[in-house]
Amino acid sequence: MILSVDVMGGDNGPSVVLPALAIALRSSAGGDVRFLLHGSQAAIEPELARMPALRPVCEIRHTEKAISMEDKPAQAMRRGKGSSLWNAVECVKSGEAQAAISAGNTGALMAISMLLLRMAPDVERPALSASWPTMRGVTTVLDVGANVESDAEQLVEFAIMGAAFHHAIHGVNRPKVGLLNVGSEEQKGHEEVREAHALLRSTAFEFDYHGFVEGNDIARGTVDVVVTDGFTGNVLLKTAEGVARFFAAELRSALTSSPLATAGALLASGALKTLKARMDPGAVNGAPLLGLNGIVVKSHGGADAAGYASAVQVAINLARSDFAAEIDRSVKRLSEARRAVAAGAEPAA
Amino acid sequence: MILSVDVMGGDNGPSVVLPALAIALRSSAGGDVRFLLHGSQAAIEPELARMPALRPVCEIRHTEKAISMEDKPAQAMRRGKGSSLWNAVECVKSGEAQAAISAGNTGALMAISMLLLRMAPDVERPALSASWPTMRGVTTVLDVGANVESDAEQLVEFAIMGAAFHHAIHGVNRPKVGLLNVGSEEQKGHEEVREAHALLRSTAFEFDYHGFVEGNDIARGTVDVVVTDGFTGNVLLKTAEGVARFFAAELRSALTSSPLATAGALLASGALKTLKARMDPGAVNGAPLLGLNGIVVKSHGGADAAGYASAVQVAINLARSDFAAEIDRSVKRLSEARRAVAAGAEPAA
Repeated sequence: MILSVDVMGGDNGPSVVLPALAIALRSSAGGDVRFLLHGSQAAIEPELARMPALRPVCEIRHTEKAISMEDKPAQAMRRGKGSSLWNAVECVKSGEAQAAISAGNTGALMAISMLLLRMAPDVERPALSASWPTMRGVTTVLDVGANVESDAEQLVEFAIMGAAFHHAIHGVNRPKVGLLNVGSEEQKGHEEVREAHALLRSTAFEFDYHGFVEGNDIARGTVDVVVTDGFTGNVLLKTAEGVARFFAAELRSALTSSPLATAGALLASGALKTLKARMDPGAVNGAPLLGLNGIVVKSHGGADAAGYASAVQVAINLARSDFAAEIDRSVKRLSEARRAVAAGAEPAA
Repeated sequence: MILSVDVMGGDNGPSVVLPALAIALRSSAGGDVRFLLHGSQAAIEPELARMPALRPVCEIRHTEKAISMEDKPAQAMRRGKGSSLWNAVECVKSGEAQAAISAGNTGALMAISMLLLRMAPDVERPALSASWPTMRGVTTVLDVGANVESDAEQLVEFAIMGAAFHHAIHGVNRPKVGLLNVGSEEQKGHEEVREAHALLRSTAFEFDYHGFVEGNDIARGTVDVVVTDGFTGNVLLKTAEGVARFFAAELRSALTSSPLATAGALLASGALKTLKARMDPGAVNGAPLLGLNGIVVKSHGGADAAGYASAVQVAINLARSDFAAEIDRSVKRLSEARRAVAAGAEPAA
């Protein structure tokens, strides 16, 4: 298993990425994982020298070029060739690596991945998926920002890819998939969701279609996979992160508001730490770009070593799984369903 | 000041609504507020008899008919005449009352309000607005579910109505208005938000247009008013409620996970109660239906007496304010801006 890593991506670069690889290596003991490290040799070498267990499974692919967080996707595509991000994805294209990981610029990663890897057969658009902590574990939510608009057929593709991903990563057979809407009744929502609903209900996939779900069903864990368009998903995810951060800040200020409260907080500090870890988006870090010919995983730009290690684990699990073949099978069923719907809609033809 | 109240609406009916009116009456002392109570005399009379301060300012308008939470909007319009909800809105239409309040079926309330009151001049679609607790106070978010799709001009209308509402309720002069998007750069987002952005930027309104905001800006309190389409807004609000409830449940379970943590929680209980009140959506209950010829305020169906009282306070504040005239002035400016844009877009005509 060879993973291709954009060491220069993210807010912290090698000082977080290399310790993260060391953590991932320990937890996948005996897994025979090797890393291609893309980035500045001068920045990587001294960090790596201090990690005797990691050193022997790494190969540095030197480049001084890096894509900044501010670069626009179009700029990154035109001028990004030879950068650490570009080279990391190119190794997946060439077959040298089974997956690429980057904490860099999301738009650039998506544009370069689509350019180099191309879309999987019969898949129209990629999707970025998020792992959302819920009352019952983790729910996969997609698309959280690869697209700004999605028609019915794209929503169905997201359902297929999200279910295949959830199965590959969490081992859930026949995941329950819900379509996000403003109500659970048939006639609710705009045309795209109603059309996607009809298509999902009438086709046999390798997942169970639950029907419409509402916003509060996400944290409740009603389904394993929540499907929505990229605009709604992106705004939703950032809103929820904002609410969680607000809640944490309010809790902190409530627990330091009086000496009594502070004493209580001290006694309860172990429990409060567990709570923080449970709610921390970093603990479920690692958002794959689904729908490409190859595995690319995006880490949060600000992830710490433990968070980045979980993104590496996502890449390893996907690379080991039957993920690509599963998507392929489901997309074929969708194509058949589309033909059936088209035939049904034009019976005279 | 006369308020028209649908006493039968909501999960609890008179047992919550009447105590709520008593609270609202106390807090608006000397305000000369009177209530028209729509609902079953047999259900209202015994509750009311126990409230000597409230009794003299109430007039019961008996009806046995009530709209259930399950009724579809179209059914409610056809068959709702004479129900407590219908009669409450009709008193605003006839001028008997300055505002109506209901905790009943949202779709029915909207449909009946549009039917009886009609849209305000030059306003195309109504919007349902939410008051969102943030790090800096309260942000007005709209539309949270009156529509499932909104074009650019409707988004601009929501900005106008949201700003006028925020000014009327919170006394903020020239509120800061943000348009929800997936990024803050000009070229981000779908056509509707980019068009609305251009229109908002180029027109002088009675508010300050801040530009695009992202999901995490809501809880951060970056702006006073956040504008989005009704699909996104509805899903967003319910998602955030879900996250807040999840956080509260996790906190509870963390604080009972060990005897030490429980002792700590006991010591800190005062502070934790303050936290709960601060984050509780019920504490900022009262969502007005904006854009109608008349004031209609929707309360959460499950609100308690204190929550319902805050919805009553919203209705009182709106009825006392210059709200309608402010919307009217802003919409006129919008109409001028539309003509200017149309003229600019077709210079040859």
